[in-house]
Amino acid sequence: MNVQGKHYRTIWLKQDDPTVVQIIDQQLLPYHFVVVDLTTVAQMATAIADMQLRGAGLIGAAAGYGMYLAALQAPTGSVPAFMASVAADGDTLKATRPTAVNLAWAVDRQLQAIAAAPDDIRAKIDAARRTAEAIADEDAEFCRRIGQHGVRLIEEISRRKGGQAVNVLTHCNAGWLAFVDFGSATAPIYAAHDAGIPVHVWVDETRPRNQGARLTAWELGQHGVPHTVIADNTGGHLMQHGMVDLVIVGTDRTLYTGDVANKIGTYLKALAAHDNGVPFYVALPSSSFDWEKRDGVKEIPIEQRGATEVKLMHGLYRGEAVEVLVTPEDSPAANYAFDVTPARLVTGLVTERGICEANEGSILNLYPEKKQH
Amino acid sequence: MNVQGKHYRTIWLKQDDPTVVQIIDQQLLPYHFVVVDLTTVAQMATAIADMQLRGAGLIGAAAGYGMYLAALQAPTGSVPAFMASVAADGDTLKATRPTAVNLAWAVDRQLQAIAAAPDDIRAKIDAARRTAEAIADEDAEFCRRIGQHGVRLIEEISRRKGGQAVNVLTHCNAGWLAFVDFGSATAPIYAAHDAGIPVHVWVDETRPRNQGARLTAWELGQHGVPHTVIADNTGGHLMQHGMVDLVIVGTDRTLYTGDVANKIGTYLKALAAHDNGVPFYVALPSSSFDWEKRDGVKEIPIEQRGATEVKLMHGLYRGEAVEVLVTPEDSPAANYAFDVTPARLVTGLVTERGICEANEGSILNLYPEKKQH
Repeated sequence: MNVQGKHYRTIWLKQDDPTVVQIIDQQLLPYHFVVVDLTTVAQMATAIADMQLRGAGLIGAAAGYGMYLAALQAPTGSVPAFMASVAADGDTLKATRPTAVNLAWAVDRQLQAIAAAPDDIRAKIDAARRTAEAIADEDAEFCRRIGQHGVRLIEEISRRKGGQAVNVLTHCNAGWLAFVDFGSATAPIYAAHDAGIPVHVWVDETRPRNQGARLTAWELGQHGVPHTVIADNTGGHLMQHGMVDLVIVGTDRTLYTGDVANKIGTYLKALAAHDNGVPFYVALPSSSFDWEKRDGVKEIPIEQRGATEVKLMHGLYRGEAVEVLVTPEDSPAANYAFDVTPARLVTGLVTERGICEANEGSILNLYPEKKQH
Repeated sequence: MNVQGKHYRTIWLKQDDPTVVQIIDQQLLPYHFVVVDLTTVAQMATAIADMQLRGAGLIGAAAGYGMYLAALQAPTGSVPAFMASVAADGDTLKATRPTAVNLAWAVDRQLQAIAAAPDDIRAKIDAARRTAEAIADEDAEFCRRIGQHGVRLIEEISRRKGGQAVNVLTHCNAGWLAFVDFGSATAPIYAAHDAGIPVHVWVDETRPRNQGARLTAWELGQHGVPHTVIADNTGGHLMQHGMVDLVIVGTDRTLYTGDVANKIGTYLKALAAHDNGVPFYVALPSSSFDWEKRDGVKEIPIEQRGATEVKLMHGLYRGEAVEVLVTPEDSPAANYAFDVTPARLVTGLVTERGICEANEGSILNLYPEKKQH
């Protein structure tokens, strides 16, 4: 999407030097827009671990490009030595965010592609580059399709409202910054905006890490989409007063039964949407489905993160990004990162294959190849 | 309640010099505990307007003491000149927070008491002092009674849990800092803690002004009550997993039909409590009832405050209280201060007269003198 009027992805090969991977440093957003050059797998591992980049789709793409950097750096004396080096770098990448499934998936896909390439190091490096680009392109393409399917929801509301702006509420950042382009929850919003359908987004700030206030607000603003930042407490009031037409969020994991794990607080918005008859949609590429578990609240483990993310707040002070203490020094804090929204509160899922209801039958109709399972 | 092991109210006359009113500067909490001397009605007006003190009960008490300071300062040449000066100061106090009903009520009560006192300036000053003390004492006594009634809810859960800690969730600050002592929502918690019943409080940080993280966490910590600060997004997840036994909140205005206006986000917690069978109680002195309006969502006007409260976050940086920018510079923000929880989501009300259900019949049974209305 656009930044300062120019089109960007979140990760790409440098125009004049395709041995360099470039990314946007998301740790500095929204205060500073900085593009970082990565030339080694160690730099990529650090970028992932330090969350200079984050989000399921983008982490997968970063692992793909990381393996391409690994191939570029590997010793060229013999194919076995080359393969051993690339495999070791794959383990390094996998260890950066052990719970990110896209990361391991992308590393393994690269290892297979590199192994399958002809027994020639130049050919293997080319295969790694092609695979990295393919992973990124597929991520962008899946998000683009989510946008094409989801925009119909917005179009329909726009028609019903006689062309008045459609008010969409979203939580956290399931935007293009979390993927390679378009985003999941934001894809229908960008598609509507780009098609000239008036749309306005209520952006939950999403405490404690403020991905909404920092990232979603920034990317919507850069692309020119009207939006308003609100405290996470606000959505229920807005829905009671008819000020939200549609809720769209992303997901970290959605079960084939329709239960949705997403950023902490999503469940509260789903309850409010249900209580006020506001449609509540979850946008996801198929890689975010969990085809094993049945009961989200009982079976999905919820990550607990450090108390400092609650106690210290990140912000800009006199031009400098700092952290300020927002609680008494000695008060304990708890930090559950996700919650589970039961399928009964979800109006539908927007996937790259189309829109379905949040239940086993409807999901398996879109993904019939999973029915054997 | 206790601060650094010593008992405090939020407002009192200085021990050795009863012409001085002392308050705790709540703007500096939780970072610094500072007692401020107020000797003029102008100082009191500034303290109220700048929110060095806040909260319905405390504002009423502050207005009472402010009128006592007005009497101390008024010209003593003649009773009419004295009365005119006191009345003018009453108008000044009323203008500090025009929507705070307790403020106007306390000023008017003082004007009546001063007028009714014998035609002697010394007697009128004494009446103002007695009335100020009476307003404060009544506020503390009402909260104490709320505690005595509400503690039974906690006792019962404690018994059912075989003495394991009772987990109470609260939102915003309806603590003793908002009243003269005990608080409304916190009164049952302090009563339980002081009676040796193990209790633990989940403290919603309460964005955007963070009254939970700053004030509730501080006062619970100072009094020794175990507590944990959480992002406002967290309560639903905790309730889904049986980690909340009881929700108690305060209210800015509760209709005689049971609809509850309180800090923005309260409605979301009430929805989650309802969805998970967690009892949801609202604690209030009778002065917070609105005996006129019937439909909270439709009829209660919701104050919109400045966007900077959302965009700038207050915290401690290198020992200094500062504000940091937490959104893109040019992203708009909206700031609705309250929401309305419909009576159907409220398990009950805890008042100074006892506990009742959140409906017209049950409320009017506790306040039969309002039935004529």
